[in-house]
Amino acid sequence: MSRKQLNIGLFGFGCVGNGLYEVLQKTPALKASIKNICVKDKNKAREIGAENFTFDKNDILNDDSINVVVELIDDADAAFEIVSAALKKGKAVVSANKKMVAEHFTELLQLQKEYNAPLLYEAAACASMPIIRNLEEYYDNDLLESIEGIVNGSTNYILTKTFSENLSYEAALKEAQEKGFAESNPILDTGGFDAKYKLLILLAHSFGYIAQPEDIFNIGINNIGELELKYAKEKGFKIKLVAQAFKGLDGGLSAFVIPKFVTPEDRLYHVDDVFNGIITKTSFADTHFFVGRGAGSFPTASAVLSDISALSYDYKYEYKKIYREENLQLTNDVELKVLLRHKKENAEALKQHFNTIEEAYTNHDSGYITGNITLDNLKALQAQNTGDRSFILLNVVTEQEAAINADLALA
Amino acid sequence: MSRKQLNIGLFGFGCVGNGLYEVLQKTPALKASIKNICVKDKNKAREIGAENFTFDKNDILNDDSINVVVELIDDADAAFEIVSAALKKGKAVVSANKKMVAEHFTELLQLQKEYNAPLLYEAAACASMPIIRNLEEYYDNDLLESIEGIVNGSTNYILTKTFSENLSYEAALKEAQEKGFAESNPILDTGGFDAKYKLLILLAHSFGYIAQPEDIFNIGINNIGELELKYAKEKGFKIKLVAQAFKGLDGGLSAFVIPKFVTPEDRLYHVDDVFNGIITKTSFADTHFFVGRGAGSFPTASAVLSDISALSYDYKYEYKKIYREENLQLTNDVELKVLLRHKKENAEALKQHFNTIEEAYTNHDSGYITGNITLDNLKALQAQNTGDRSFILLNVVTEQEAAINADLALA
Repeated sequence: MSRKQLNIGLFGFGCVGNGLYEVLQKTPALKASIKNICVKDKNKAREIGAENFTFDKNDILNDDSINVVVELIDDADAAFEIVSAALKKGKAVVSANKKMVAEHFTELLQLQKEYNAPLLYEAAACASMPIIRNLEEYYDNDLLESIEGIVNGSTNYILTKTFSENLSYEAALKEAQEKGFAESNPILDTGGFDAKYKLLILLAHSFGYIAQPEDIFNIGINNIGELELKYAKEKGFKIKLVAQAFKGLDGGLSAFVIPKFVTPEDRLYHVDDVFNGIITKTSFADTHFFVGRGAGSFPTASAVLSDISALSYDYKYEYKKIYREENLQLTNDVELKVLLRHKKENAEALKQHFNTIEEAYTNHDSGYITGNITLDNLKALQAQNTGDRSFILLNVVTEQEAAINADLALA
Repeated sequence: MSRKQLNIGLFGFGCVGNGLYEVLQKTPALKASIKNICVKDKNKAREIGAENFTFDKNDILNDDSINVVVELIDDADAAFEIVSAALKKGKAVVSANKKMVAEHFTELLQLQKEYNAPLLYEAAACASMPIIRNLEEYYDNDLLESIEGIVNGSTNYILTKTFSENLSYEAALKEAQEKGFAESNPILDTGGFDAKYKLLILLAHSFGYIAQPEDIFNIGINNIGELELKYAKEKGFKIKLVAQAFKGLDGGLSAFVIPKFVTPEDRLYHVDDVFNGIITKTSFADTHFFVGRGAGSFPTASAVLSDISALSYDYKYEYKKIYREENLQLTNDVELKVLLRHKKENAEALKQHFNTIEEAYTNHDSGYITGNITLDNLKALQAQNTGDRSFILLNVVTEQEAAINADLALA
């Protein structure tokens, strides 16, 4: 099978761009070379000579000898502009920008079809881990029941440090930023937005469902406080930021990002530091579990490299599941067992929003409630959250359990 | 993308064949139906009517309306006959027979090429886990450094029971056989042969290297005794049967199957029961870890189903790495740190075969030595093993460590 010669136009030369440059030097079997690099800042000191760079995107977009554009910039809006311009020129594109891909999924799908140009973005979800490729190629749509995982490396790094080294949240965040694991705007990571963008991409490739960022509920780790950390430690749990999506019995699709208590029996318990881990569940194979580094310049660059390599064999996403049109609908009709940490004086009012209450605890100034709550009520409470509340998922209440609870309430 | 209508001729209706039959009933999106089933035993009671079966393989092989042959029989020689006849007829073939694929890799490659007919066998390595597809599609050859894992479900089930429930080896084996996890001939599993066949398949798809069964050294779990179990338990280790292959600094390729002590920090420690787990290591992505069920009718059938589904989109293995011809060579030039359990009276003689000795222990009738030994010496000692010795790997000695040890010995 013959491989295409790839001439790359690279946008962005930060952490990952630099990593890709080095990685390409060491993979001669791949007939790919960087012809031009477009960067924004004219005055920044860089590791390679100025002759490699341009400051005008058209030097790449209008260069017909460049057949692959690799987009590795921070700004999602500028990235979309570049990627759509490149696709319109018929160039293949590789991107690592989850926000851009998630926010413009439908348009990007349309552009790929209209201009017959492939867009690959394995690095946009779980960095080095080949999860999109697996979802796209291996799982037949009607067999996949759920997907659940740790998809954000920097929050996992922060949570790991918080648990294993008793670092404060602020100190752990600072360390993650210094190591280049966190986005420049930390709330994207710590607020669960980055995880949500990845979940949106995974939803499209796992269930063929294209959702908008505002359709998916996300809680991050930025409000986690001492009380719930203590609760976790006393019970031998860890807290992980978990993105998940699953099909209900009626065919509805639930999807959200929320911190979760995990026990040592849970595979995600052992996914620490910047590693990401995804558990898929299918009707017949049961669970599959994938683990890989979810951040870092070389791991992310390696996923970009895999996409570049795939392009050399004319690979493209077929989006089979999207075109199969299963008419799945996102639903909020799901019940969650959570821990809600709150101010002491709010305890009684908050209890009203729960379907069932298992535990209630208060000390001199704060407290927690554990019990079952609908996703709608959870969203409503979170919308009014001024930072004095925190929700941690214990588990999703199965539809069977919810039905039994409803019967008990009526009896 | 249009899907081909697949008319399946199925060989074998045991555990997995039965599972596949049921799974196909529940996946209507896949346009695949079983047209005929060939079985050997005319008198066996079966769950579906006699009209579904034939006893003459030519009823399938000569049926031009059948475009896919699925081979799920136990006998590797008969399987090869069927698979090669089907490929020669230009039929696509799906097989789960690792022994057959491993023993006839070169011939099967040639047949696929000559008759332009695809052969897929995801179920032959690690059952439900999509490892072949990942190795084939995702890893660029020059980036993969090593592959290591638990690839045999029944021995992992036996070892798990031995550790967690203190079952005897014999009782655990019996339970595995009763649950349908073990091959009909247990030595294939317990002797590490099944793991070796899988390693041979993985070698071809990970490093592009086709080896013969006799090229690869394997030790199974059938000689593991109380002393090394006690050693593991006292130190908080588990024993896992691990297949591994890695590239050396000089480009040599080492590959073997040997039981290994794993610590709680090792990802394989948490792969229990019939689950399989594979760790790949690449230069840039670092490690990836894949886990899935390695035995059982539905998990194995689900991998067969994924191959059938892939055929409906005209997928085939490209064998890129084999055709890239890297001239890798298998080497025994590797040093292993092992525990050797032995009869008390053999202690001194056995020590002569070690490069370095770390610990030596004896009790009234037996003992163990831990230390570094070359793979050649290990093979020689194992060749004379009458069942009174057992080797458990502690770790592979890196080339750097081996060089330092050699310097120390000279000094």
